Amino acid sequence: MIRIAVDTLGSDNGSKDIVSGILDFLKDHDDVEIYAVGKKEELTRLEGKCVIVDAPDIVPMEAGPLEVMRMKNSSMYQTVMLAKEGKVDAVVSSGSTGGFLSSSTLLLKTIPGVNRAAFIAPFPTKIKGHYVVILDIGASNENSPEELKQFALMGALYSEHILGIKDPKVYLLSNGTEPAKGSPVGKQAYKLLMSNPHFKGNIEARNALSGEADVIVTDGFTGNVFLKSSEGMAKMMAGFIKNAFKKNLWTMLGYLHVRKGIKEMSDTMDYKSTGGAMLLGVNGVVVKVHGNADAWSMYCAINVARKLVKSDIRTKIKEGI
Amino acid sequence: MIRIAVDTLGSDNGSKDIVSGILDFLKDHDDVEIYAVGKKEELTRLEGKCVIVDAPDIVPMEAGPLEVMRMKNSSMYQTVMLAKEGKVDAVVSSGSTGGFLSSSTLLLKTIPGVNRAAFIAPFPTKIKGHYVVILDIGASNENSPEELKQFALMGALYSEHILGIKDPKVYLLSNGTEPAKGSPVGKQAYKLLMSNPHFKGNIEARNALSGEADVIVTDGFTGNVFLKSSEGMAKMMAGFIKNAFKKNLWTMLGYLHVRKGIKEMSDTMDYKSTGGAMLLGVNGVVVKVHGNADAWSMYCAINVARKLVKSDIRTKIKEGI
Repeated sequence: MIRIAVDTLGSDNGSKDIVSGILDFLKDHDDVEIYAVGKKEELTRLEGKCVIVDAPDIVPMEAGPLEVMRMKNSSMYQTVMLAKEGKVDAVVSSGSTGGFLSSSTLLLKTIPGVNRAAFIAPFPTKIKGHYVVILDIGASNENSPEELKQFALMGALYSEHILGIKDPKVYLLSNGTEPAKGSPVGKQAYKLLMSNPHFKGNIEARNALSGEADVIVTDGFTGNVFLKSSEGMAKMMAGFIKNAFKKNLWTMLGYLHVRKGIKEMSDTMDYKSTGGAMLLGVNGVVVKVHGNADAWSMYCAINVARKLVKSDIRTKIKEGI
Repeated sequence: MIRIAVDTLGSDNGSKDIVSGILDFLKDHDDVEIYAVGKKEELTRLEGKCVIVDAPDIVPMEAGPLEVMRMKNSSMYQTVMLAKEGKVDAVVSSGSTGGFLSSSTLLLKTIPGVNRAAFIAPFPTKIKGHYVVILDIGASNENSPEELKQFALMGALYSEHILGIKDPKVYLLSNGTEPAKGSPVGKQAYKLLMSNPHFKGNIEARNALSGEADVIVTDGFTGNVFLKSSEGMAKMMAGFIKNAFKKNLWTMLGYLHVRKGIKEMSDTMDYKSTGGAMLLGVNGVVVKVHGNADAWSMYCAINVARKLVKSDIRTKIKEGI
């Protein structure tokens, strides 16, 4: 039995959708036991189906690392503690990203040999059904060349064992494709990466989602800028498209004809169905869901946590490092 | 009379569109003299209207700094030399970005007091007609906190004198809005920037194009990743939209109803009409046009060069530093 703790608080939409996601997930899977952590009175629908842990405090979105560690009665702290105490195999939260990453890192510690944990997420690409994983997208503000080398290893393991990509192609995010391109840290990392058989060289941000790469390695600051500029541009264009259809009755009629295509586009771009982002390199399986998680994204995230536990990625990382 | 040298080679589309752009520009402006540099036989339409400089070699797209400096007969080298020798006030090229930036920096040198030149470009925002300038988007691979401070000053001058924004709001690109966020260099830059009255704090990449910022400062590596990830995502979404309309006769009919709106969106997103990117901080006005420049983008770029000369931004930077 795989045991997964789910933080039911801290989501933008409250706990209702999260509870629905847990119920949907349990309907389809009988190999998982869920520990639901949050306000007891909001979890009545889960009674008899989950282990319920009452921890009513909510970690604020902008919480710093020390703040979370002090909030012992928070759903987030209690969720991570369940993993630390060995009561669960994985933790899932849609609460404060900073709070969740820092409490997970501080409480679970990194796997022996891993210098730093990396925040990793699958991104949709131009090729339908193909995802590229990018790490670190923001666990750190800076990384050493050696850390980037470890990220390449962890990213390839994720790509192989969770996304099922055989012999994943690993690239380094850079400002040009030539080996001499890159930030000072990137250039040094390039040299270290040459010993990795999966490594294919530098890739520019404009080709990151083209589908050629399976794994892209970057420092946490740059990865965060990549993530957020892609997100910003996608939102801006989605807004323009909506406006284009709102002009008059004719354009609204036009919308009826293309809405299926637009729905398909949104689905391809939907970060929710990718199951969130993971903190790799810590002693435990840590999955972060987007702040506006709905039942479906929670379902997917719990499923990713389940897959990560089943694949025993932690042991694979330990052996690989 | 403002004298502008235009490199007519190195564009993806050949010199024909560039020549058309020059002709269109000259029709509307009588205060500019153009030096057209390139293959003489391709410039016959300009005879009697421009000073024609025969320099038939083309700098390859992937040229390194030393390579350009050796290609004395190239249109790019000759164009920049005209500025170095004081024969023109500004230079415009759509050729190799790396080659153009490096030859301009090496030949023209930075303005006394300026540590490093910055590559700056205006980006369209959610607010129609409002542009945010971002620098450095790739002249350097790394920058010191002091350099970022100078970029803030140069960016504000550009925003004020070229885009006509009074009291421009300057932000630092970061991975969070709190002052403690950022890369190690960014955090130090934040402290130096506090003395700049235009400085409003950190901004995340997802809000860079929201319209709240007039100037965004970043190091060249991160700025380049921002530029290219925004570009990549915009292209990917544009591709999805086109596919949505191609499904069947009904969706193609739908397109007829929204094409005006989509045209408006493309216009807002059109980097061509923004007049390209500029190298600020060197002894001269240097304007880079996108590699697939058409007549209209060349027209706009020459006009930006004209405005930069007229506003005497070089003296303003010198005084500001």
